[in-house]
Amino acid sequence: MSFSLKILGCSSATPTTWAFPSAQVLNMEERFFLIDCGEGTQVQLRKHNIRFSKINHIFISHLHGDHFFGLVGLLSSFHLLDRKKDIHIYSPKGLKEAIITQFRITNTYLSYYIHFHELSTSEPQVIVDDKKLVVKAIPLKHRIETYGYLFQEKLKERKLNVEQLEKYKVEICDYRNIKLGKDYLTDSGQLIDNSDLTFDPPKALSYAYCSDTAFEPKLFEWVKHIDLLYHESTFLDDKITLAKKTGHSTAKQAAAVAKNAKVGKLILGHFSARYKNRTLFLDEALEVFDNVELSEEGRVFSIKN
Amino acid sequence: MSFSLKILGCSSATPTTWAFPSAQVLNMEERFFLIDCGEGTQVQLRKHNIRFSKINHIFISHLHGDHFFGLVGLLSSFHLLDRKKDIHIYSPKGLKEAIITQFRITNTYLSYYIHFHELSTSEPQVIVDDKKLVVKAIPLKHRIETYGYLFQEKLKERKLNVEQLEKYKVEICDYRNIKLGKDYLTDSGQLIDNSDLTFDPPKALSYAYCSDTAFEPKLFEWVKHIDLLYHESTFLDDKITLAKKTGHSTAKQAAAVAKNAKVGKLILGHFSARYKNRTLFLDEALEVFDNVELSEEGRVFSIKN
Repeated sequence: MSFSLKILGCSSATPTTWAFPSAQVLNMEERFFLIDCGEGTQVQLRKHNIRFSKINHIFISHLHGDHFFGLVGLLSSFHLLDRKKDIHIYSPKGLKEAIITQFRITNTYLSYYIHFHELSTSEPQVIVDDKKLVVKAIPLKHRIETYGYLFQEKLKERKLNVEQLEKYKVEICDYRNIKLGKDYLTDSGQLIDNSDLTFDPPKALSYAYCSDTAFEPKLFEWVKHIDLLYHESTFLDDKITLAKKTGHSTAKQAAAVAKNAKVGKLILGHFSARYKNRTLFLDEALEVFDNVELSEEGRVFSIKN
Repeated sequence: MSFSLKILGCSSATPTTWAFPSAQVLNMEERFFLIDCGEGTQVQLRKHNIRFSKINHIFISHLHGDHFFGLVGLLSSFHLLDRKKDIHIYSPKGLKEAIITQFRITNTYLSYYIHFHELSTSEPQVIVDDKKLVVKAIPLKHRIETYGYLFQEKLKERKLNVEQLEKYKVEICDYRNIKLGKDYLTDSGQLIDNSDLTFDPPKALSYAYCSDTAFEPKLFEWVKHIDLLYHESTFLDDKITLAKKTGHSTAKQAAAVAKNAKVGKLILGHFSARYKNRTLFLDEALEVFDNVELSEEGRVFSIKN
């Protein structure tokens, strides 16, 4: 199955010719979730061959411009391209007003419907729950209301061991219960353990996006054991005081979250433009946690079961 | 003196990796006027080495996204760069609400002051008038309220002919009146014609930006004899009906305005993405008017006295 994250932009503050603000696309089984949408995201989507029509859910972490100023342009382009499908947008309160105001003054009556889901929670909250996956909003610790997002596959059914099923002459009508993990009672009264009849399903994969945030120990629990964690690291250790003051993290703090939460891999991003050499972020994080990579425009992180 | 126009973007509708929406910078004697501000304009400004701090006036033609969705990001970057100087923004009514709403929901208290000048006029109107130049808003004919902008240098003082001044023993205290065009009466009662004492000043240059607009014969008079005219040509002649319906012009219609207004040079722009070969716009316009050029990202048009 597909589970991959593509970085479209990973810089903080103002966009430049060489650094786009936050935006990324998570592909979970060919569902494309757009996470944050800084100015220029629609151009980045085109550049990286992600079809607009595949995007049905957009998650905005918070209402600082480098995380959403590209949204109205993208939504406007959906309209110009005559989109019909509904779209769901998750964000803190206020985004709807910003978007609706602009469509009102531009005299735009959209060709499709936007469902604005404005969040307000101090605990992790399930915001999408369907057959295959769950998405949770996670409150972060920034200067304004901010949410990270945790994307979790649901555990699939157990896989049938056909040879064993034939051996015990299991009827097809019982397959459903066995896939769900139940043991099986044969006609002769023998109880067969489910593990003798099935194989484990593939591991359910998970990804969390945590930007922007100060160091937040609650994340140790909230993103525990996930496969992939994107955690902001706006600053290096030399600016730890500034990080605290502005509601951001250092690379080491991001790594401390990864370590304590025992995640599979940490991706650093949201780099301050003051640092020209980004490998310094990697170096500092590696002192704390051993599986770290840097975000970079166009880079893809795939995880497998 | 400097009088040059730099194109940052000249496409209609949605931005792509190869075509930026409307934005251009007019340099009149080292004053940099930003005209329209589609998404991505701040990146284009950086790419083309135009310093943010030089921009003190922004002119927005109308409130369709491809002409202003880059403005809030640019204004936000001014703030992040700790701008202190005031900025003046000219536009139809509604822009202030769009911008202010976004700064309110992003909890932004700007480091500088914005003067919003929201226009409402059915005739050309002077909106800037200083020592060196005049800017007029020109009502255009589009689907929503839209203004073109006419930038005119003021005629400079006449240049003194020093040899002649010495010949007639003119006192320095009379120079001011002579520069202003007055004749001179010598002590012996002889009236010297001003043209014997001065040279003509350099020609006052002028530029008009007309986008978006349907064919508008009023422009023949309103932009008469200007040196440089940017006129939109969204379509070719094959789409003249669509042009009329959508409030746009064809290349030939743009050329007809240039011809009837007897302008120096016509620049075409705001091309629909449906046309891959832009030289067709040039070909069609040249059938009507003989000094035509195409907009292109990064292209500079200079005019001289």
